Amino acid sequence: MNILEIISKKRDKKELTKEEIEYFVQGYTKGEITDYQASALIMAIYINGMNDREITDLSIAMAYSGEVLDLSRFGENVVDKHSTGGVGDKVSIILLPIIASMGIPVAKMSGRGLGFTGGTVDKMETIPGYRTKVDVNEFIQNVEKVGISMIGQTMNLAPADKKIYELRDAISCVENIPLIASSIMSKKIASGANKIVLDVTVGKGAFMKNKEDAEKLANQMIKIGNLAGREVKCVLTSMDEPLGYAVGNSLEVIEAINFLKGDMLEDVKQVVLELGAYMIKLAGKGDNLEENKQKMLQNIENGQAYKKLIEMVQNQGGDISYLEDTTKFEKSKYISAVVTEKTGFVQEINAEQIGKLSCYLGAGRVNKEDEILKNVGIILNKKVGDKVEEQEFLAYICADDENKLREAERKILEIYKIEDQEVEKQPIILGII
Amino acid sequence: MNILEIISKKRDKKELTKEEIEYFVQGYTKGEITDYQASALIMAIYINGMNDREITDLSIAMAYSGEVLDLSRFGENVVDKHSTGGVGDKVSIILLPIIASMGIPVAKMSGRGLGFTGGTVDKMETIPGYRTKVDVNEFIQNVEKVGISMIGQTMNLAPADKKIYELRDAISCVENIPLIASSIMSKKIASGANKIVLDVTVGKGAFMKNKEDAEKLANQMIKIGNLAGREVKCVLTSMDEPLGYAVGNSLEVIEAINFLKGDMLEDVKQVVLELGAYMIKLAGKGDNLEENKQKMLQNIENGQAYKKLIEMVQNQGGDISYLEDTTKFEKSKYISAVVTEKTGFVQEINAEQIGKLSCYLGAGRVNKEDEILKNVGIILNKKVGDKVEEQEFLAYICADDENKLREAERKILEIYKIEDQEVEKQPIILGII
Repeated sequence: MNILEIISKKRDKKELTKEEIEYFVQGYTKGEITDYQASALIMAIYINGMNDREITDLSIAMAYSGEVLDLSRFGENVVDKHSTGGVGDKVSIILLPIIASMGIPVAKMSGRGLGFTGGTVDKMETIPGYRTKVDVNEFIQNVEKVGISMIGQTMNLAPADKKIYELRDAISCVENIPLIASSIMSKKIASGANKIVLDVTVGKGAFMKNKEDAEKLANQMIKIGNLAGREVKCVLTSMDEPLGYAVGNSLEVIEAINFLKGDMLEDVKQVVLELGAYMIKLAGKGDNLEENKQKMLQNIENGQAYKKLIEMVQNQGGDISYLEDTTKFEKSKYISAVVTEKTGFVQEINAEQIGKLSCYLGAGRVNKEDEILKNVGIILNKKVGDKVEEQEFLAYICADDENKLREAERKILEIYKIEDQEVEKQPIILGII
Repeated sequence: MNILEIISKKRDKKELTKEEIEYFVQGYTKGEITDYQASALIMAIYINGMNDREITDLSIAMAYSGEVLDLSRFGENVVDKHSTGGVGDKVSIILLPIIASMGIPVAKMSGRGLGFTGGTVDKMETIPGYRTKVDVNEFIQNVEKVGISMIGQTMNLAPADKKIYELRDAISCVENIPLIASSIMSKKIASGANKIVLDVTVGKGAFMKNKEDAEKLANQMIKIGNLAGREVKCVLTSMDEPLGYAVGNSLEVIEAINFLKGDMLEDVKQVVLELGAYMIKLAGKGDNLEENKQKMLQNIENGQAYKKLIEMVQNQGGDISYLEDTTKFEKSKYISAVVTEKTGFVQEINAEQIGKLSCYLGAGRVNKEDEILKNVGIILNKKVGDKVEEQEFLAYICADDENKLREAERKILEIYKIEDQEVEKQPIILGII
């Protein structure tokens, strides 16, 4: 077997064997196969495609290119949750304590944000003292002790995926469903869960801009899961406008804490309940989705979910007084309320543009090495479908830099599309696959 | 403009503009575009193709990535000749002195051999003293003085093509007609001729294994020529068995000298006359192809062509006593006559296998850096269609290493396919395009 033969086969639209895929993934991870050879093969895969078996073998080979987490001690049905990325997406911080409060073990490794999409780890780190850099043993111990742990990717998780993803980014091969699906699934397989609920976001602030592509991606990931022995459920959710009101690290954490204290925003609530209902079902703790949702709401109302968040944060060194009193979170230097001069209905708040604006204020990274600011961002005051009147507040800008504040004030007025005609609120849950 | 956009376009099967192609070629030549990005684009070109305009722009951009020879001082119709490669191909050494002897200026840069294909420069260098490393000024002066000069590629000729060719070789993107055509044509355009006769070889010892592909390649090169303002004529010639009898550097030179002295092998003669007739026509020196051939034969018979070879060799420092007495060429250490034990007709002498065997004896290079031996090789004694009887000589092996000699003796018996049934001699000229 050699890489030239493997490249030729895919170039000629032939099927690669499991052994050929493993040869490529291992060789590239070790640096025995060059970037330019990997590049040629990836472009051939992009153009000529892969069948379900090949995509599954690629996912598994990437998963096993590094360490694979063993969560079998937590039983047969270890459930994980993943989102394909969005703006204002604080779902994990809300949903996972709820799930853990129902006695389902939660061992969650999350990524950092890149580009306009935020990352759960960056958000959690805004809680003073909370440690996201935790080794695998402690991670497992945390789950055993309090039933939940949320950490960053401290393991050498799917290094082949990391290397291939960076290459794809440099050769215009990112937007490709087989490659996206295998990238996500490789990390999920390496993360040790055998039941996976995926939040597949759709819309202006998501990777998948339309429902058709999102369905293709979802179906692809389900097929990989089935062939790899993982049960996968996909919930398609709308990401045209940001989820909830807050966009920015500590701002989103505060919104999440308030949610668990009972202040539930409608769109966030729908996403949390839908994903959670399937997580509970996959964990083998209840087949009736409506009942599952009721149980979740019950654990919010009775404080169990919030208590679980407190336990987790405390267990990982976080200062829980910030949770108890969210006004303790440091504020950004400037906070400015943006006033509209229009009267009408909000037609659109482009999530990608909001994400980029938040990133511009310092909440996100353009490059992986960038430092981020914890307290900057945007808090929406009006959402799509809302009626606004002249002189009403549209949004609040939280900034540390005055020039950036002014620029953001100007931009937010452009991002909010306000017209006379009434707008019907669009559903947030777009489908279940 | 940026390389990611260019890659995306070709990935999505869109047409690249002239500016985009130039941006890629210049950027890659300068090292501003990485190998892995070039690799992705080349794979996309391989799979998704290019139209005639794009291929022409690629050829021109590669031609102008380095120095371009200006031969306009030699008139409006400067004619060049090129072969797509073969085994035993000594045509240039015979044909070009004939053409020069008719008053048509010949300024020919040739390549070195690589793989199983020989190179004219390697062959010319077997004449003691003959200098192939000549700078451009001297090259031009030589043509002005004696009407002909044959040298190696001393100029920085189409460096982009060189870089792209090496990359293609490392990523399984060699066998692709648009890329082959633009590679050949870029060098021809940079070499300064505006009339080009191409010997497109077809068969077991050629790049193009069948006539259909050879016709595609020929048509592609003609289209590039037309769009680039170069008149191109293609002669398709058979390369199933080696051309002539001799394969190996000095062995082929001796065969070429003998040809010009009047000892004309039939297959070599047909190729020389056909290519030459078109060169004369394109040079504006005679529209009647048959008359052109007669004039060429006349200049062989009256010694003018041989005299021109002598002039050229002498002018570039070569010892012409070797031409006058070819027995002066040093012999290989071992010369062995291989005897057959079969009686029948020669069905096949696979040119690629003969080329590889000659290379194995030391006449060719596996890698670019390899040293070659001047006097080793194979001299066929029987060709396809010939009747052979038990104990007759099939071929002579010229070797410097005894083990290699023995191995070659064994292999040559395998390469000669001898069966009872008579074989009709196949035409050597397969078509004109």
